Amino acid sequence: MTIAFEVIKECKDTRARVGRLYTPHGVVDTPVFMPVGTQATVKAMSPEELEEIGAQIILSNTYHLYLRPGAEIIKEAGGLHRFMHWNHPILTDSGGFQVFSLADLRQINDEGVTFRSHIDGSSHFLSPEKATEIQMALGSDIAMCFDECPPYPASYEQVEKAVKRTSSWAERCLEAHRREDQALFGIVQGGVFRDLRERSAAELTALDFPGYAIGGLSVGEPKRLMYEVLDYTVPLLPASKPRYLMGVGTPDALLEGVKKGVDMFDCVLPTRVARNGLALTSSGKVVVRNARYARDYEPLDPECDCYVCRNYTRAYIRHLLKANEILGLRLTTYHNLYFLIRLMAKIRTAVMEGYFLKFAEEFMAKYLEKEVSSGECRNQ
Amino acid sequence: MTIAFEVIKECKDTRARVGRLYTPHGVVDTPVFMPVGTQATVKAMSPEELEEIGAQIILSNTYHLYLRPGAEIIKEAGGLHRFMHWNHPILTDSGGFQVFSLADLRQINDEGVTFRSHIDGSSHFLSPEKATEIQMALGSDIAMCFDECPPYPASYEQVEKAVKRTSSWAERCLEAHRREDQALFGIVQGGVFRDLRERSAAELTALDFPGYAIGGLSVGEPKRLMYEVLDYTVPLLPASKPRYLMGVGTPDALLEGVKKGVDMFDCVLPTRVARNGLALTSSGKVVVRNARYARDYEPLDPECDCYVCRNYTRAYIRHLLKANEILGLRLTTYHNLYFLIRLMAKIRTAVMEGYFLKFAEEFMAKYLEKEVSSGECRNQ
Repeated sequence: MTIAFEVIKECKDTRARVGRLYTPHGVVDTPVFMPVGTQATVKAMSPEELEEIGAQIILSNTYHLYLRPGAEIIKEAGGLHRFMHWNHPILTDSGGFQVFSLADLRQINDEGVTFRSHIDGSSHFLSPEKATEIQMALGSDIAMCFDECPPYPASYEQVEKAVKRTSSWAERCLEAHRREDQALFGIVQGGVFRDLRERSAAELTALDFPGYAIGGLSVGEPKRLMYEVLDYTVPLLPASKPRYLMGVGTPDALLEGVKKGVDMFDCVLPTRVARNGLALTSSGKVVVRNARYARDYEPLDPECDCYVCRNYTRAYIRHLLKANEILGLRLTTYHNLYFLIRLMAKIRTAVMEGYFLKFAEEFMAKYLEKEVSSGECRNQ
Repeated sequence: MTIAFEVIKECKDTRARVGRLYTPHGVVDTPVFMPVGTQATVKAMSPEELEEIGAQIILSNTYHLYLRPGAEIIKEAGGLHRFMHWNHPILTDSGGFQVFSLADLRQINDEGVTFRSHIDGSSHFLSPEKATEIQMALGSDIAMCFDECPPYPASYEQVEKAVKRTSSWAERCLEAHRREDQALFGIVQGGVFRDLRERSAAELTALDFPGYAIGGLSVGEPKRLMYEVLDYTVPLLPASKPRYLMGVGTPDALLEGVKKGVDMFDCVLPTRVARNGLALTSSGKVVVRNARYARDYEPLDPECDCYVCRNYTRAYIRHLLKANEILGLRLTTYHNLYFLIRLMAKIRTAVMEGYFLKFAEEFMAKYLEKEVSSGECRNQ
C-alpha cells in the first residue's frame, strides 16, 4: 500500500476527525491545509520557510508544470521533490480544473480536452491517460484523476454528463496508473445535485481509490450551498479513507469543512490575498496596504507568534508593499500561511481534546468574514 | 569616539590592508562589500539571510527613505535598525547622488537642491542641514555628508565648482551633525582631475572626519581612468581612517580597489543583475535565464557552497525566472551577494596570509569580465 490513513480521534459533536496520512515522503496530520505551489514553488516562500511554519504537504499543478518547464525536465531532474527542493509530501492536481477554466480556449470530447496554452497559445491535448502519465513523471505522492469540473451555475444535464465522463475517465486513469510509490485519488463530481453526487460517489467508490476528493465546489456557488452539498456528500465516502475538499481555504470554510468530515484542503487564497496586502488575523482581516497602517507599529496580528509578527510592524510591511519590495510579499505570505496552518493545528488539538465545537464558535466570533469571498480560490 | 578603525595587516605587495571598523551596532571586517538596501530592505532578501551569508553592514538611501515612508515614521518606529529588523551596522548615503541624478527634475544653488520626487512629482528641498537631520532621524551608524557629485564627463570648471560646494557643504553637515552614536564621513570629489582631487582631499581631511569616501567615480568613466584616480587619491586620505569607494561592486573593481587601499565598497549591481537572471560565478557570469540552461542540473556555481548552490539547479532557477516566480529572484540575489561577500572574506584571508597578489591574479584568470559594465552601479 502506497498510502495509509488512520483516524485516531472522532469528534463527539460533529463529523470532525483527526487522522494520520502516511505517504512515501512522510506523515501528514489531518485535517490539513495544503499550501499551493502552482509552478513548483509556493509563491514567495522557500521550502525551509514552509517547513518552519509547519507545512506538511503542498499541492502543485499538473497543467502549469506540463506547459512550463515540461514534465520531461522535471523527470530528468529526479522528480518534482528534487526539482523544487521539497522532500515532503506533494499532491498534484490533474490539470482538469485548469483546462476546464480556459473556457474559450478548449474543446472537450470523451477522449479528452484540446486546449490552448495561456502562455503562448500553443495547442495541447490532455486525456486521462496523459494527465496520469504526467503525474507519474512528476512523481508526486498523491496524484489526482483527470475529471470534468463543471462551472457554477450549470444545468442538471451538463453536470450529469460531467459525472458520467468523470467516472469513465477515473477508470482510464486507474488503468493508466502504474507507479507504486504514488497514490491516485478519485474525484466526486455532481455539482449541487444530490442524486448526481450520490451517483458519482457510488461509481467512484466502486473503483476503490485510496482517497477521495470532492470536486466541483468552491467554484462560485454560495457557501451555504457548498455546506449543504458537503452534508450529504461526505457520508457517501468511505470513512476509512482521506477526504479532500478541493479549492477551499477561508478560515470559516475550513472550520465548516472539518465539521462535516473533510480531512484535506487546498486554496491559493492565503497566498494570493497576501500579495494584495491583506493579512488574515485572529480578529479578522487587516488590509495592511491601507494608509491607516502607515504609523501602526503593531505586528500584523498581535496574537500571532510567527516570525513575521515577532519581528516586523504593520508600518514597515505597508512601506514594503507600497514600495513594491519583494520582502513585503514574503512577509504577508509567510504570515497568512502560518495563520491557516496554525488554525488547522488548533483544530486538531480541539478535536483530540473534545472541545472542537466550542473552539469553532469562539474562533468565528472573533474572526468576522468581511472582505474575502470563497470563490475563485484555485487560480493563482 | 563613535567609531573606531584599526588596520591589523598591510599587504607587502600592494596598498591592500585588512582592518576592523567598530560601530555602535557591531564590528565590521574590512575590506568589506556592503549590500544595498535602498528602501530599507535589500531587495528580495530577509535580514536573517543577510546574516547567513555573512553581511556585516548594509547601505540604505536617504533620498528614498525621506520620500517614502518618510524619516518621521522611521524615527517613530525606533530608528532604521528597528524599522527594518537589522540589528547590525548601517551606512546611509546623503541623498546627494540620487538628487543629482534626477537631471531635469532638480535645481541646485549654494543653499541646496530643489527637486521633484520620482514617485509623485512633489517638490522637495535637500540641503546639507536637511540631509544630516534626516540621517540623524534614521539613526544609521555611519552618515554621509551631502555632496555634489558631477556626472562623467564633466568640464574642469563644473567639477571645480562641485569640489568647492562639497567642501562648504561638508562644513555645514559637520555643524548640523549632533548625534554621538553616529559617525559622519566626508566625501572627496574632483572627478578625473588630479589637482581637484588633491584640493578636495586637503579641504575635507582638514575637517577631520572619522572616515572618508571617494565619490564621483563609477559614474560612467572607463575603469582604467577610475583606477588611475584611485592611485593618486587614496594616498591623500589618512591611513588611520576607513576609505570608502562609493558605487563599486564588480569583482574585478573590488580587487583593484582593495589593491589601491580601499576598505569599503557598495553597489546595487549584484542584486540588480540577479533580478535579470545573471549569476556571478567563480568562472564568470552565468545568464541562467538563457535557454541553454533549461536542462542544466548543475548548481549556479559548482564551486560555491552557498544555500542556493547546495540545493538548487540552474534548470530550476531558470524555470522560476521564466515563470516570474519570486523565489527565482530570491535565489539569484542570495547567491550573488554571497559570492561577493565570500570574495571579500577570501581577500581578507589572502592579505592576512600574504598571498593577496597571487590570489587576485588567479581569481581574475578564471573570472573573465564579459557582460556587466561597472557604470550605473548605484541606482536600483
